[in-house]
Amino acid sequence: MPSGTNHQIRLAARPTGAPTPANFEATDTPIPIPGPGELLGRTIYLSLDPYMRGRMNTGNSYTSHVKLGEVMVGGAVSEVMESNHPDYSTGEIVFAYSGWQQYFVSNGEGLSKVDPRLGPISTAVGVLGMPGMTAYTGLLNIGKPQPGETLVVAAASGPVGSLVGQIAKIKGCRVVGIAGGQAKCNHVVNELGFDTCLDHRARDLPERLAAACPDGIDIYYENVGGSVFEAVLPLFNEFARMPVIGTVAHYNATELPPGPNKTPLFMRAILTKRITVRGMIVWDFADQEQDFLRDVSGWIRDSRVKYREDFVDGLDNAPEAFIGMLEGKNFGKLVVRVGTDPTA
Amino acid sequence: MPSGTNHQIRLAARPTGAPTPANFEATDTPIPIPGPGELLGRTIYLSLDPYMRGRMNTGNSYTSHVKLGEVMVGGAVSEVMESNHPDYSTGEIVFAYSGWQQYFVSNGEGLSKVDPRLGPISTAVGVLGMPGMTAYTGLLNIGKPQPGETLVVAAASGPVGSLVGQIAKIKGCRVVGIAGGQAKCNHVVNELGFDTCLDHRARDLPERLAAACPDGIDIYYENVGGSVFEAVLPLFNEFARMPVIGTVAHYNATELPPGPNKTPLFMRAILTKRITVRGMIVWDFADQEQDFLRDVSGWIRDSRVKYREDFVDGLDNAPEAFIGMLEGKNFGKLVVRVGTDPTA
Repeated sequence: MPSGTNHQIRLAARPTGAPTPANFEATDTPIPIPGPGELLGRTIYLSLDPYMRGRMNTGNSYTSHVKLGEVMVGGAVSEVMESNHPDYSTGEIVFAYSGWQQYFVSNGEGLSKVDPRLGPISTAVGVLGMPGMTAYTGLLNIGKPQPGETLVVAAASGPVGSLVGQIAKIKGCRVVGIAGGQAKCNHVVNELGFDTCLDHRARDLPERLAAACPDGIDIYYENVGGSVFEAVLPLFNEFARMPVIGTVAHYNATELPPGPNKTPLFMRAILTKRITVRGMIVWDFADQEQDFLRDVSGWIRDSRVKYREDFVDGLDNAPEAFIGMLEGKNFGKLVVRVGTDPTA
Repeated sequence: MPSGTNHQIRLAARPTGAPTPANFEATDTPIPIPGPGELLGRTIYLSLDPYMRGRMNTGNSYTSHVKLGEVMVGGAVSEVMESNHPDYSTGEIVFAYSGWQQYFVSNGEGLSKVDPRLGPISTAVGVLGMPGMTAYTGLLNIGKPQPGETLVVAAASGPVGSLVGQIAKIKGCRVVGIAGGQAKCNHVVNELGFDTCLDHRARDLPERLAAACPDGIDIYYENVGGSVFEAVLPLFNEFARMPVIGTVAHYNATELPPGPNKTPLFMRAILTKRITVRGMIVWDFADQEQDFLRDVSGWIRDSRVKYREDFVDGLDNAPEAFIGMLEGKNFGKLVVRVGTDPTA
C-alpha cells in the first residue's frame, strides 16, 4: 500500500458569483484502507468541467451539491493500487467520480474500466469520456443533423463544442463555431475543420453570425446561453432543434440579467419556427455508451476527429485552473495531472 | 344564384396593442360569380380564433399577414350554392379559410367537405375543426400523456384547452385547468371533469398552482404564456413536455415585459429538468386528421368529451366579439352565425 498522505481539495466556502481561491482549501488525510469488497484508487487525471460550478451552490441542481468541507466533486482516471473487489485487479485503469483528491476507496459503484487501447487514458475524461459523450448523444439524439443543414455551437475549441462540430461535419452539416479569441478560432477552422468560427467577444456578433449563416440555423447546440443565444435566436429556421446541455455564461451570475424580459421572444420563436428545445444530461443516454466509444474512437483513429487537451500539473493548481475555465482561459479539455500516468 | 350583396369585414388599419373597432371596416360588394371549375360558397359559421390577431400585424408571422383593405382571414363552415367544380355539389357543406364575408368563390384549393353525421356542422370550426385538432395533435405528439401524470392547461374553458384536458383525462392524467373567473372554473370541473381549475386572476396563482400540483407538472400545454407560464415553471418535473401552440397573453403586447430578463430561468429549468419544449401549428400534423376526427367524434358520441360553443349573431358583431375574445370574454368556442344553417 502506498505511503504518505492523501492530498485533497475541499469546498471551504460557497462562492458568490465567480469562485475565488478562498472557496477551496487543501487538506491532508491518511490514505484510506480498502475494506472487504473495496479497492484503493490513485488519481492520475482529474477532469475540470463547468458543471462543478453548480455543485458549489446550495439549492436544487439536477444532482446533489457539494457539502461545505467535503472533497470537491469530479471525475477522474485512476489506477487500482489494491483491490479486494472481484471485478478489479491491481494496475487496472478506472474512471470514477472520485473527486479532487489523490486517493480514494470504492466499492465499485459508479466505477468503470478504461480501455487503454482506445486512446491515451486522459481521454477518458475528455473526448472519450463525459464531455465527448455529451457532445455525441446531445447532437445525435436531439440535434439530429441532416446533410446540408447549418449547425452553430459555442465554446467551439472546448471538449464538447469541438466534438459537436466535428461530428456535425461528418454528418454533412455546415458548421459555424463560436469561441473566445483569434487563436481558438484559428484552431477550430484550421485543425478541426469547421466552416467558420466567430469570436464571441466581437461587439457585432449578431451581424457576423447572420452573415455566417446565410441559410439560417437548423441546429443550435446550447452550451453557453447569454449573448450567443440571443444572436442565434433570430436566425432559427423552421423545425430547428436546440439541445440544451449547459448555460455556462450564467453559472457565475448572482442575479438575473437586466430587462426587458425577453422570454416572450424565445417563446414566439419556438412557436412560429416550431423549434424543439430539449434539455439533457449525459446519463439520460447511458445506454448509448458503447456506440459512442466505438464511433468516436474510430473517428479519432481515422483522423476525422481531433481533440486538444489543456494539462495543468498538480492538484494544488486545480482551483486556479477551474476559476480560469469559467472565464474561458483554457484551450481544449482542461485536465489536472494529479499523479504519474503508468501508460504514458 | 343568390340575390343581394356580399357583406364583408376588412382590415382597415393595423392595431397598436389591443385591436379596436376602428381597425375593421364593413363593405358590400357584388356576390361573386363562380367561373369554370369554381364554386360559390355561402358562409354559415365563421370561426374567431386568437391566431387572427397575429395576421393583423405586419412582419413575419408563420403565415402571411392580412393586407390593409383585405377581407379578414378566417375559417368558416359554408354551403355550396352553385358549383362548376367536379368534386362539389350544390347543398354540400364545406370548410375553407374563406374569411369574414358572406359569400366567396373557390377553385377547391384548401376546401374540404364537412360530414354532418359527425356532429353539428358548427363543430367543424371547433371541437372537430382546427382548435380540436390543435389540442389533439399537440397533446398526443408532444405532450405524450401517461397515466398518473399531471397536466396543466390554461384557457381551460376554451376550445383548445377544454379538449386538451378532457383527452388527458381519458389518457389517465390528473388535469389542472386555469381559466378566467369562477363560472368558467365551475364548468371546467363540473362539466368537463377536470380535477381542479384555478382562476388566473387570483394574485396568489403560483402558490395555488403549487398546491394543486402536489406531484409537480409533467405536461404544460402552452397556449397563453405570461403569468401562467411563470407559475408553471418552478413546478416542472424531470422529463416534462411543453407543447407551445400559442402565447395569447402576449398577442396584444406592444413591447416586451419589464425586466429582469427571465430567459435564464427558463433555460435552467429546461436543462436541469430535461424538459422538451416544442412549438407546433396544426398543419404540421395534417396527416393525422382522420385519426383525430375518428377519435374525437367517437368520444363525443360516448359523452367522454363535451364541448361548449359561444355563438354571436351577425357578421357585423364579429369585430367586437373578436376584441372581447382576446380579453377572455368568450365562454367556449367563439362562432359567428353569418347565415342560416340548413342542417339545424
